[in-house]
Amino acid sequence: MKRRDFLTSASVGAAASTIAMPAIAQTAPEIRWRLQSAFPKTLDTVYTAGEAFSKYVAEATDGKFQIQVFAAGEIVGSFQTLDAVTNNTVEMSHTVSSYFVGKDPTFALGAIIPFGMNTRQMNAWLYEGGGNELLNEFYSKYNVFALPASSTGTQMGGWFRKEIKTVADLQGLKMRIAGLAGEVMTKLGVVPQQIPAGEIYPALERGTIDAAEWVGPYDDEKLGLQKVAPFYYYPGWWEGGTTHHYFINKAKWDELPKAYKTIIQSASESTNLKTQAKYDARNPGALRRLVGSGAQLRPYSQDIMDAAFKASNELYDSLSTSNADFKKVYDSYRAFRNEEYLWFQVAEFAFDNFMIRARSKT
Amino acid sequence: MKRRDFLTSASVGAAASTIAMPAIAQTAPEIRWRLQSAFPKTLDTVYTAGEAFSKYVAEATDGKFQIQVFAAGEIVGSFQTLDAVTNNTVEMSHTVSSYFVGKDPTFALGAIIPFGMNTRQMNAWLYEGGGNELLNEFYSKYNVFALPASSTGTQMGGWFRKEIKTVADLQGLKMRIAGLAGEVMTKLGVVPQQIPAGEIYPALERGTIDAAEWVGPYDDEKLGLQKVAPFYYYPGWWEGGTTHHYFINKAKWDELPKAYKTIIQSASESTNLKTQAKYDARNPGALRRLVGSGAQLRPYSQDIMDAAFKASNELYDSLSTSNADFKKVYDSYRAFRNEEYLWFQVAEFAFDNFMIRARSKT
Repeated sequence: MKRRDFLTSASVGAAASTIAMPAIAQTAPEIRWRLQSAFPKTLDTVYTAGEAFSKYVAEATDGKFQIQVFAAGEIVGSFQTLDAVTNNTVEMSHTVSSYFVGKDPTFALGAIIPFGMNTRQMNAWLYEGGGNELLNEFYSKYNVFALPASSTGTQMGGWFRKEIKTVADLQGLKMRIAGLAGEVMTKLGVVPQQIPAGEIYPALERGTIDAAEWVGPYDDEKLGLQKVAPFYYYPGWWEGGTTHHYFINKAKWDELPKAYKTIIQSASESTNLKTQAKYDARNPGALRRLVGSGAQLRPYSQDIMDAAFKASNELYDSLSTSNADFKKVYDSYRAFRNEEYLWFQVAEFAFDNFMIRARSKT
Repeated sequence: MKRRDFLTSASVGAAASTIAMPAIAQTAPEIRWRLQSAFPKTLDTVYTAGEAFSKYVAEATDGKFQIQVFAAGEIVGSFQTLDAVTNNTVEMSHTVSSYFVGKDPTFALGAIIPFGMNTRQMNAWLYEGGGNELLNEFYSKYNVFALPASSTGTQMGGWFRKEIKTVADLQGLKMRIAGLAGEVMTKLGVVPQQIPAGEIYPALERGTIDAAEWVGPYDDEKLGLQKVAPFYYYPGWWEGGTTHHYFINKAKWDELPKAYKTIIQSASESTNLKTQAKYDARNPGALRRLVGSGAQLRPYSQDIMDAAFKASNELYDSLSTSNADFKKVYDSYRAFRNEEYLWFQVAEFAFDNFMIRARSKT
């Protein structure tokens, strides 16, 4: 045997045995990640989605891939859940893309915009209409790979101390509302306020603010706002079907083995489906209790809805002119939404419409 | 060292090394299953859900758990997809629970009943309202463990050769429709017909039948029925949000390692979410094309809807009297549905209602 051959054979042998063991390590490595939730534990429906996600991943990998979940503020606050992933302070977060409209309004399109899509339509756009791909092209500028994580359905339109019937009634009203919805409300004469959830009740009680929006019946019930601002408006036209995301540091995502990527993707789809199911299961009882304890349901008037719709479209036209990323994603989003409602107005809406009226007869 | 100690030490050593290797085999064994789909490949949206499911499971297990998917008829036919799982001819199927109402009407409640729940409400009941648990208690009588697999949304109400405006127009009409919907239609004067999909077109063309129901725009388009029965009715009040299931042989399910169970459960939730997203993405374009090629959309009249609703409730009362399993599951289902519509009529419906009317203005 020539020395060269011997070396080669030995190298091959060594390589083969080296490969045999690390092959296991490579396909099922032990990994520890930290997930920073943008949600406090009190928002239990959506907070526990992150825990369910982590549990799926741990179980599917026989405990090899552990993702520890931290409630809002435990590592960084809700509004740092983008930067913390960009900078790899944490490997991932569970967050609301629209929290970051201050950096770029394009972020809103990952979550919801005023007069956007309902939950089913949003999922159709994200998974089947090119939405996920368009958003990830944008998110990659922030070193983020994102997966839809959960959704709330159509939210409520907030709590008001007094009835509002026309756009004129909104003039000068101080309302806790943020993001693009705040910009639209400003066009209608409202003065948006930034107030943490825990301070909403006393601010409404003292009259420091006139109105506040939060989520829907199940989450709103915990704030007890019906006692200080009993007029409970619907629909939340600025949140027709809000989607949350898992933001994952892109380098960390890219280095995962294929099996772990599949497990994470599947787990994200599980929590996206089942968090909506949880909200849908919990909201009816909460709505009953709220009305039973003084909440007075009021629909937004056609006058206000029309004005808000017009103001929203003006805002989108303006953003599309000044921001190429926004325009690219919004053009896809808007076209998809309009096609969806073409179809939803037929079978879906006709069925629901009949069932709503028939409900009391069963 | 005493002989006893030596034996013990050796045993421990042997046991330790024996355990070390099989531990891998136990937690990640090589498994091959066969999945018999109840769907032909032509129903591509739902058929490919089974393939996506199989792909998720294979990828998540690094190829160790392989599930081969067979189109309807390749091993057994669509209506044998329960027996084949009960008898372990195949380990699992992707099927429609309501296909088996001939064995027991309780099967219908796993899929959809006339005037049942829409997709979101059904998922809320299944995952969060005790639905999955109640159904699996029933399915276990057939050696089946079931997981929700996919859904279609509200289906269309079928194709008619002539317009039908009142219940009187339904008298003596021969319509391709099956299951509990067929029983309700019978109460309205219709004569239900059992015809395979491939024979619907010639039967309508020759006038052997007067009407036929299939699925929704995307699947219906392939049959070309607008050419022979142009009146396309909505909503499909007997399929407000049809759910399909993976039926798994219970003994086969029970013997899976925990990790594989989690992977299968998560994959089933993925396909349940994304199949609905696919239908929602594909139906609008198909509806446009159908209307462009002669389909004439017609809503079922209030007269027919009211009569069908009344007939359905009579049927459920009758079944609840004669069948304890049906009554147990239906009582939960009905109560949940009524609570859901209490909530959906507020934010969800008001939002969709506005967006449908606003669509043309964007």
